[in-house]
Formats: sequence, structure tokens, C-alpha cells
Amino acid sequence: MSIAEDQVPGVEPATAESQGFVFNHTMLRAKDPKVSLAFYTRVFGMRLLRKLDFPEMQFTLYFLGHAEAGEVPEDDAERTAYTFSQKGVLELTHNWGSENDPELSYHDGNAEPQGFGHICFAVPDLAAAERWFDANDVEFKKRANEGKMPNVVFVKDPDGYWIEVVQPALSAGLGD
Amino acid sequence: MSIAEDQVPGVEPATAESQGFVFNHTMLRAKDPKVSLAFYTRVFGMRLLRKLDFPEMQFTLYFLGHAEAGEVPEDDAERTAYTFSQKGVLELTHNWGSENDPELSYHDGNAEPQGFGHICFAVPDLAAAERWFDANDVEFKKRANEGKMPNVVFVKDPDGYWIEVVQPALSAGLGD
Repeated sequence: MSIAEDQVPGVEPATAESQGFVFNHTMLRAKDPKVSLAFYTRVFGMRLLRKLDFPEMQFTLYFLGHAEAGEVPEDDAERTAYTFSQKGVLELTHNWGSENDPELSYHDGNAEPQGFGHICFAVPDLAAAERWFDANDVEFKKRANEGKMPNVVFVKDPDGYWIEVVQPALSAGLGD
Repeated sequence: MSIAEDQVPGVEPATAESQGFVFNHTMLRAKDPKVSLAFYTRVFGMRLLRKLDFPEMQFTLYFLGHAEAGEVPEDDAERTAYTFSQKGVLELTHNWGSENDPELSYHDGNAEPQGFGHICFAVPDLAAAERWFDANDVEFKKRANEGKMPNVVFVKDPDGYWIEVVQPALSAGLGD
């Protein structure tokens, strides 16, 4: 690292007005919630924290996170407030009927036009995670031993969004 | 809620193989890192956890999160591993020179072709956050008192990505 992170151009010190702000969730549209929920709960170990239906606007929101069973409130309103308070939440938006539309597929952000790139999960054992993905027929974009970034895996979710997978200790030497 | 979250079609129980998985970060491309870093550190109170340069591939990655000052390791390798271990990290990718390309702008995922939708921050006081955004000339897409979802704010980041802002207790009654 050439200069300390707090001296990088643009970086400003924390302000009183932004105290307590939390990066809560990232929203991705999902064509078929049944398929995506199975993928994120089974393969990536997430829990469905909350499901919110909006019949008037014909969509449903699914909020997924890695909470322990006991820490998620039972009461609906408390559960919603809890969901919006956490870090590391993935929101999937299902526009009703999209799963039956043969023309519909979502844009991954890496083909043109570019913008969003990927989400990333940290795992305790990258080699074991690769075997687990293979056992679940997950599509790989890049395995740990391929490409220019060793020990960085990329797989695709059911809509084709890219998911990076890293084992933090193995990625400690990444970059300059 | 019509049915409990663990009975929603597609949802599966946690597996041993996904124990310890963490939703670490979301990556968005940023045209001008100086502008985006100022925005996310000053307005949203994030810290630059790590900056990783990849000269061979001509890009730099900036990882931002809400860590307390004391908990971020000083040592570069430890700091990288720490960054990849956290929840709620935002990664900005800067392809060198993009800030000088008058033709370049990134796709927000909400115009066609759709995919990624937004990121979301929870704040302790939504009305105070609105005033803070105004004081910093942040562009609003929707204020708390506009549209069909009361108490949900949307602003835009410097690249035009949508940022939802909620106060969890005020959103407890959202949806059916």
C-alpha cells in the first residue's frame, strides 16, 4: 500500500450526522423466487429473514441473511424492523409472474451496459466450498486455480448474477 | 404474513456445508473514486477499510465499511483479511482513467436492461438524514413523504446508483 487508507484522495473523516448509519442490504431482481431461495438458503446458508408482499404493486420482497435462529424475532413488525437493522442482507425482488415469462432474464451488470459487478461471500474453507458448489451443480465462472487472481472463486446465481467467494486468510496478499 | 418464513416455497434448512458463510460485500463500478469516496465517507459515514491496486490490470478496488477506528488492523495483510471477513462492505471498482472519459457512465440497473436495483442504508433518524442529504446536495429520487412507500427514501450516489434509506422502526409495518 503506497499511502494509508485515511489519506487516499476523497476520503473524509467520519461526521456526527452519519453516526449509526448501517449498510443494510443489496437488492437484486430474481426471476423465480422458489429457485433463488433454494439456492441462497441451501448453498449459501442464508435464512429468509422476512417476506413482504405488496399486492397493489404486484411484487414480493425476500430478505435473506446469516442470522442465528434464536436472534430473529417472531413478531412480524419486530421481525421487519430487525431485518432492516442488520448488516449483510440480500433482498430479492420478485415481480409477480416473471417466472412464467419466457422472454424475461435479468442483466448481470458485467456485460454492457456495465454497472453493478457482483456480490461476495467469505467462507471458512475455499476448497470445501468448491466441492460443495460442485455437489450442488453450481455454475462456475472461475475456479480458485484459474485466472489472474489465485484463491478467488466466481460462481453464478440462478439469474446469472456473479458471486465472488473468498477465504479471507487466503486473500490477505491480494493487490498492491 | 400468510405463512411463516421457513415454510416459503424454496426455503431449505441450513446445511453443515454452508456453516460460517458470510455475505461480505457488494461491488459497484465507480467512475471517479475521489468523488465516490467523498460521498460514502462524508455523507454515509463509511470508512475506507482497504485499497487494493492491480497495476497489471489497471484497476483499483476500494472497500468501505462502518467499522470503528480501533477494530481495523494496521498491518496490510491483516487488514485485507479483516476486510474480507466483515459484513456490510461496499466495494468500488475504479478502472483507471474512467474519470477522464466523457463518454463513460455506469448503468444503474433500474433502467432497461434491469437487474441490480439498489443498496440500502439504515439510519437512526430518517428526518435528520433527509436534512443531512440536503445539506450535502445529495440528489433525491424519492423523499419520505412521497410515493407509495411512506418513510422510505431513495437518493442517488455520484454514479447514479440508487440508495434506499430507512429508519428500521418506521418501516416495521411495510408490506403484507
